[in-house]
Amino acid sequence: MTTAPASARAVLARTLIMRTAERLYATHGLAEVSLRQIGEAAGQRNKSAVQYHFSGRDDLIKAILAEHAEAIERHRLALAARQGEPGPRDRVRHIVLPRIEHHIELGTPSWYGRFLAQVTVEPALREYAVRAHLNTASLRRLHDAHGSGVGRSKDMTRQLIVHMSAELETELAREQPPAAVAAAAWRRLGADLVTAITGLTDALGTAAGRVRQPDQSVPGRGLGG
Amino acid sequence: MTTAPASARAVLARTLIMRTAERLYATHGLAEVSLRQIGEAAGQRNKSAVQYHFSGRDDLIKAILAEHAEAIERHRLALAARQGEPGPRDRVRHIVLPRIEHHIELGTPSWYGRFLAQVTVEPALREYAVRAHLNTASLRRLHDAHGSGVGRSKDMTRQLIVHMSAELETELAREQPPAAVAAAAWRRLGADLVTAITGLTDALGTAAGRVRQPDQSVPGRGLGG
Repeated sequence: MTTAPASARAVLARTLIMRTAERLYATHGLAEVSLRQIGEAAGQRNKSAVQYHFSGRDDLIKAILAEHAEAIERHRLALAARQGEPGPRDRVRHIVLPRIEHHIELGTPSWYGRFLAQVTVEPALREYAVRAHLNTASLRRLHDAHGSGVGRSKDMTRQLIVHMSAELETELAREQPPAAVAAAAWRRLGADLVTAITGLTDALGTAAGRVRQPDQSVPGRGLGG
Repeated sequence: MTTAPASARAVLARTLIMRTAERLYATHGLAEVSLRQIGEAAGQRNKSAVQYHFSGRDDLIKAILAEHAEAIERHRLALAARQGEPGPRDRVRHIVLPRIEHHIELGTPSWYGRFLAQVTVEPALREYAVRAHLNTASLRRLHDAHGSGVGRSKDMTRQLIVHMSAELETELAREQPPAAVAAAAWRRLGADLVTAITGLTDALGTAAGRVRQPDQSVPGRGLGG
């Protein structure tokens, strides 16, 4: 370790800090964890290590989100490579399943699910989380192709994936089942999310066709990435 | 004010602290607001005022939740009194609409929606929020009658109501529309939630009947109140 070049040591320190922050935030909450506690738990001797490697809490959190987004995008590309361009009924699977595969790859216990759920409701971070982390180009294409590109259906899809994943992660962290059992629980959640999101999107589409034209100009329609 | 008996003054102080806490938490986040800041913003001269009236942060938060739960329950009873015992297709309306009516009554800006969304993902509070605040006896009866009493459908219903309400509240707080426009946006969200939840519950019920028997013994099925 002491012979590693400075840049490699810096990369290692950044990675350690990110993993530690995610774990502490997930288990104790954004409100209960200071940057100094993160640095100490990550084995950094310098009290300002986190501020040295990241300019502050929000940059640290954005770096963690970016790393997960890349991994999820790789799962999405792999799914498309295996199965080809998704047909109309497959698009919800291509929205949901890459996130499920990412959770399976993270193993148990993981912290990303609970961490992300907190970040998406934190006033200073929620807009960034929705626009940059949860609304990537590949996701936008899938939503547009699925007819859920605007409005409720897209927002509900995002909320269900984020918060149902955080709940399953909480439960698995408590029960610590064998890896195969955890993977099966994630796949079951994935299948249920695909079913539920397809059902709610169809229902909203039918209701919209029946009772009103889409209206983008009023509150309650604009937000949500 | 100075002539009010101590108990009335204590009630007033508690109420002021609760309203202030909810507003500060909603707009700045649980992580960024101290009990001392809440006391100061609520006009309390004593630096330990919040600890005097509530034993700490979690008790303060539980008191705020309890107050809202009572108001929502009143809306639910009023709806049942107006419309009688709900039929099968009305039960989702009786789950969703009392929360929507509560938001309309709170006016704009309100803070409860964003406050609740944060509380439900906070590690120290989430279980309490789900079990005590979001799973009242009247709600359990409606879920059981609707066939969504266990498992995914109930959990998804809760997540959609909490987090879609928080998002609309964020948007209304930013845009500050006239009260009638805000009320219409809440009613539109209520109608869309009823449609979406009915759609996803039907879809999950159909899929469960097709591919598997319910299994309560595996992870991913037990949690969620």
